[in-house]
Amino acid sequence: MSLLLIAKNRDMNPWKDALLEVDSNLDIEIWPRVEKKERVTFAVSWNHPEKVLDGYPNLKVVSSLGAGVDHLLKDEAISESVKLVRVMIPSLKSQMADYVLNAIQNYRFHTSRYVDQKREAYWSKHDPVPKEDCTVGLMGLGEMGTAVAEWLLVNGYSVLGWSKSKKEIKGVECFNESGFDEFLSKSKILVCLLPLTKETSGILELYLFKKLQSPAFIINVARGAHLIEEDLIYALDTGVLKGACLDVFEEEPLPSNHLFWNRPNIMITPHVASITDPNEAAEQIVENYKRSLSGMELLNEVDRVRGY
Amino acid sequence: MSLLLIAKNRDMNPWKDALLEVDSNLDIEIWPRVEKKERVTFAVSWNHPEKVLDGYPNLKVVSSLGAGVDHLLKDEAISESVKLVRVMIPSLKSQMADYVLNAIQNYRFHTSRYVDQKREAYWSKHDPVPKEDCTVGLMGLGEMGTAVAEWLLVNGYSVLGWSKSKKEIKGVECFNESGFDEFLSKSKILVCLLPLTKETSGILELYLFKKLQSPAFIINVARGAHLIEEDLIYALDTGVLKGACLDVFEEEPLPSNHLFWNRPNIMITPHVASITDPNEAAEQIVENYKRSLSGMELLNEVDRVRGY
Repeated sequence: MSLLLIAKNRDMNPWKDALLEVDSNLDIEIWPRVEKKERVTFAVSWNHPEKVLDGYPNLKVVSSLGAGVDHLLKDEAISESVKLVRVMIPSLKSQMADYVLNAIQNYRFHTSRYVDQKREAYWSKHDPVPKEDCTVGLMGLGEMGTAVAEWLLVNGYSVLGWSKSKKEIKGVECFNESGFDEFLSKSKILVCLLPLTKETSGILELYLFKKLQSPAFIINVARGAHLIEEDLIYALDTGVLKGACLDVFEEEPLPSNHLFWNRPNIMITPHVASITDPNEAAEQIVENYKRSLSGMELLNEVDRVRGY
Repeated sequence: MSLLLIAKNRDMNPWKDALLEVDSNLDIEIWPRVEKKERVTFAVSWNHPEKVLDGYPNLKVVSSLGAGVDHLLKDEAISESVKLVRVMIPSLKSQMADYVLNAIQNYRFHTSRYVDQKREAYWSKHDPVPKEDCTVGLMGLGEMGTAVAEWLLVNGYSVLGWSKSKKEIKGVECFNESGFDEFLSKSKILVCLLPLTKETSGILELYLFKKLQSPAFIINVARGAHLIEEDLIYALDTGVLKGACLDVFEEEPLPSNHLFWNRPNIMITPHVASITDPNEAAEQIVENYKRSLSGMELLNEVDRVRGY
């Protein structure tokens, strides 16, 4: 039995080292130079090329290298009998919470504007946006969303939450599908932390932006496909939105001729909000590998029907 | 009896309105059009021109409009018998705490680098500086410093504190003058929140920078005169420091030909870390005015010998 590491444009050797650190007896292969495909029962993947996993007849489990699993669900070459799991470790949640807090505070304190002014050697003050005017609406209340909500509460923000099935988080006013419009109308900063599914794809569009408390600010730290990019440009140009902070994009790296680069009121980071540390994740991956070998229930298994 | 509002290049009418909101019977004059100088017993000042207060024979108290009083202490025209007070309201502390947290997180997450990359339509990831590598050393543990320390603790940072007389703050390792070198050697991010006095003027200089845990980051939110500006440039150029975030400068507005503007590893904000809101401060100012009229002890009085 062996474990396969597979990712596009990413050096997987640090992952191999981290896994061997947990158990030096593991048999690990790194794609594309795989010696014995038939021995692979467990794959750890990040954005692997579609259909490549077709050639592994004994594959039982594919683990996402991070929290997102949309890259696994969209690959029809992964048979339905293959189980999908995700990695969910505390540091993914704390990184995300810090990123979102920082994005909100940079909006409040005009950080990118001051960086731009510096280039012009231009001294001009701008009033901070008061915390009271920054009610945060979180879309998606899974492990990430809940961690972000709790962190923002600690930092003194009013937080609303929205999810498909209604959640209970102390201090957070939670809404489910039927309360969507009310949730939006109360939100001044909208944060997308939804899983990417058929239902949530394109959810960040003009119709939704218009329902927010105007003028609102949006933060997308989920997937680029949640956002209709031309709607964002239009909403910014027409004053429906005041600004946006985006960490994820329809196409990554964001093409150099993309309209987003030239918009002063969009903050862009290159998909760095929450990065899985091999050394922290290795134990959970090895645990799931061993569970899979003995037929035990897996940690953080994905529900293929729900899509997360 | 009347109260004088005096500041250079600042519209004081919102202050007059805020004070009258607290007590509509107040007699308020706004410099420079003062009708009856001899009636003025109480002045509220921000950077008033030196020597101007000479002409007010019955002046008993000067209140700084904010937390800093160095602009009052340096004016020899204010007689020693005149009492000095400051404004200290909760929002000054919470603004400062949020500013320092934001400065630290922007350093950790390379915010200004990403803003600069955006201008070049350039997609490149940089590893965040881990929180564990960000032990914060706070110089100055007055009301501001204590508030910042507590806020950083809530946000998961290790915090050291240094002050002239040793303080006790739960969760913070505190040092006094004799522990200065140890304090510096343990600090990776140095935050200056000291009052500006003869002793602290120029304290941020090369000799000090070299004692920090290398390479360190510094944040100055106190006064420009705390920093030897050419030492900062030299320390950045020679790798002694990794970067700096500055909100205050020797000369403000920072001259457009100043070297700081062109340094990629200096974040510049135009003295906005903590701004006194007239509506919040008015009650405290009126309270002190009334106390002064009846000869009572004043709130937040400044010790002229200590200099704060």
